[in-house]
Amino acid sequence: MYNFSISLPTMIHFGKGMISHLSELKASGDKVLMVYGGGSIKRNGIYDSAMKILKDAGLTVSELSGVEPNPKIETVRKGVEMCKSEGLDMVLAIGGGSTIDCAKVVAAGAKYDGDAWDLVIHPEKIKAALPIYSVLTLAATGSEMDEFAVISDMTKNEKWGTAAPCLKPTMSILDPTYTFSVSKKQTAAGTADMISHTFENYFSFEKDADVQKRFGEGLLKVMFKYGPIAYEHPDNYEARANLMWAASNAINGITRVGNAPAWCVHPMEHELSAFYDITHGQGLAILTPRWMEHILSDKTAPILAEYGRNVWDLKGDDDMAVAKEAIQKTADFLFKTMEIPSTLRAVGITDQTHFEKMAEKAAAGSVGCFVPLSKEDIIEIFKAAF
Amino acid sequence: MYNFSISLPTMIHFGKGMISHLSELKASGDKVLMVYGGGSIKRNGIYDSAMKILKDAGLTVSELSGVEPNPKIETVRKGVEMCKSEGLDMVLAIGGGSTIDCAKVVAAGAKYDGDAWDLVIHPEKIKAALPIYSVLTLAATGSEMDEFAVISDMTKNEKWGTAAPCLKPTMSILDPTYTFSVSKKQTAAGTADMISHTFENYFSFEKDADVQKRFGEGLLKVMFKYGPIAYEHPDNYEARANLMWAASNAINGITRVGNAPAWCVHPMEHELSAFYDITHGQGLAILTPRWMEHILSDKTAPILAEYGRNVWDLKGDDDMAVAKEAIQKTADFLFKTMEIPSTLRAVGITDQTHFEKMAEKAAAGSVGCFVPLSKEDIIEIFKAAF
Repeated sequence: MYNFSISLPTMIHFGKGMISHLSELKASGDKVLMVYGGGSIKRNGIYDSAMKILKDAGLTVSELSGVEPNPKIETVRKGVEMCKSEGLDMVLAIGGGSTIDCAKVVAAGAKYDGDAWDLVIHPEKIKAALPIYSVLTLAATGSEMDEFAVISDMTKNEKWGTAAPCLKPTMSILDPTYTFSVSKKQTAAGTADMISHTFENYFSFEKDADVQKRFGEGLLKVMFKYGPIAYEHPDNYEARANLMWAASNAINGITRVGNAPAWCVHPMEHELSAFYDITHGQGLAILTPRWMEHILSDKTAPILAEYGRNVWDLKGDDDMAVAKEAIQKTADFLFKTMEIPSTLRAVGITDQTHFEKMAEKAAAGSVGCFVPLSKEDIIEIFKAAF
Repeated sequence: MYNFSISLPTMIHFGKGMISHLSELKASGDKVLMVYGGGSIKRNGIYDSAMKILKDAGLTVSELSGVEPNPKIETVRKGVEMCKSEGLDMVLAIGGGSTIDCAKVVAAGAKYDGDAWDLVIHPEKIKAALPIYSVLTLAATGSEMDEFAVISDMTKNEKWGTAAPCLKPTMSILDPTYTFSVSKKQTAAGTADMISHTFENYFSFEKDADVQKRFGEGLLKVMFKYGPIAYEHPDNYEARANLMWAASNAINGITRVGNAPAWCVHPMEHELSAFYDITHGQGLAILTPRWMEHILSDKTAPILAEYGRNVWDLKGDDDMAVAKEAIQKTADFLFKTMEIPSTLRAVGITDQTHFEKMAEKAAAGSVGCFVPLSKEDIIEIFKAAF
């Protein structure tokens, strides 16, 4: 087990009706920036519930709406400007990971003198942030409990993740009923996203981080069990609850610290989203089995086989055979059970024009990962996924 | 999954050499109360290491030594008096769970006007505490990352657990090499303690808290794998590291919240320790299989069988048969593999004089647990364990 440091200070209030805890925002001041996306929170009533609790608690609310699925730096800049000019005390994201990510960089930008994009490409410049709160409406990214945020600058085809301890939310409300209205497409993409996070933290040559490995396998079992239930029965509380809590734990650090190296698949997907603005979870799903096939070797087979045996209950002593079966199980789950498009073409990437440039950037972003990937490796994976 | 709230703010620095982080105590002030036990930290060099780092950081150190294995309220009172009279800023426990528990109630007592025993029997009176730090030297209780403390008043045969969010340590150093010198007896007892914590949080009629159940099973697998390795090879780093991190996670809340009711076995064991001052982990080990046998019924068999199948990989469709095999596996692990004495008589409890009084108090302490236990149930369990 590698040395590590970890702290999970975010106060999670989990369950139906927990939005009442929003009154606790008063502890951070009087003026809130409420950050949200396309307005679905107005249709499903969460906006009204939140607004009433905040106003009853004596808070005044400014609003930053229209956060994009791959949140853009322009929106972040707008939020930062509001915080600075209106002297706001905290940010409250209501939405999925994109909204929370946007709110996080707004919160950091409000405490920074330069342009917010600096904080995306130079995480070390994030020294402080306004208190960050969230009400989660999509089980996927885990941003509600972690220190990461991913922001895009589409004018430059750039999508980068940043991180800082002060980006961990002070409090997050996780009410599974808020995800009942998530579409089948987004339920599948969100499940693929949390599975990918778990994989990124799980696959490692560190063989003795058993606590972390067993936690990762437990999360994968939960995702493979409940993903299809939520997909078919969107208002199944237990399915939504388990997916929601699994997604938070997939990336809050408890499966990563002491075990995992740098991530492999996310840097590749970020290039797809940066160039083509596709749904992040779909991009991850498409790349993951192709990546597994590409890195399969005598050296990695025992590790992929361990995944197959412990998560899929596969039998047999031949590591290579079990590893291949595990990859097939993974692909079948994503593309058949969850009905995610299985190729880049199927999500609208119809040319390979940018593959070389994308691969070059992705290779730079995955330094130190489980199996090192060169630019050429990544082009091969993109082509296999095409 | 039940509604829940959770936050794990303790900064964990895990791994060899992490004691260097003690310099960070400066953030809480200038004057530390160092709390420790019988002096083993002087023999193994941890005392000298800590003292050097603290002094180099400009801190002055007062010392409270001689904390007992079942920490006594008299020792807590002594520490509180030192904090108050010397105006100390924080407490630093160096030791196992008993030392940390003592330091926690000292820290709360320093912020309380009345007698510290009030805080043990009335947790709601704990409103604040000095910052609490720990350097862990025994993998067992999980006190390094939780909000609990157990204190005894032997003059009244009372042993009670108290809890408050402010009792969560600010920072804990977990260096597995510090547990290399733990005796075989204490290694076995510590393993039994962490197994019992996992059981207390795991066994529940809540069938849909899958994340928590899978985490609990993962921890149990780690404990059953590495307990014997640490027992036979005390300086095996990976065994000590996995046990140490598993013990923290067994009780920090991640397997309990959303799943578990009140605890069953600890209230019974606390009576054994309160009347006979036995080793806590040994008492838990002796009671656990007897408790499992006592509560086994058609209603509980599926739950015990799930444990058997998912942790011990037992086969078969007959829940009752698998449950019985799982209980036998548990007993064999504790009493054969880890060589823990299997009866109360073997740890010096040679009469049944106090069983009735002990059972009455234990029954009061286990209200709302997995399978409710009456005074009569508990007397039967004590007698079966005798």
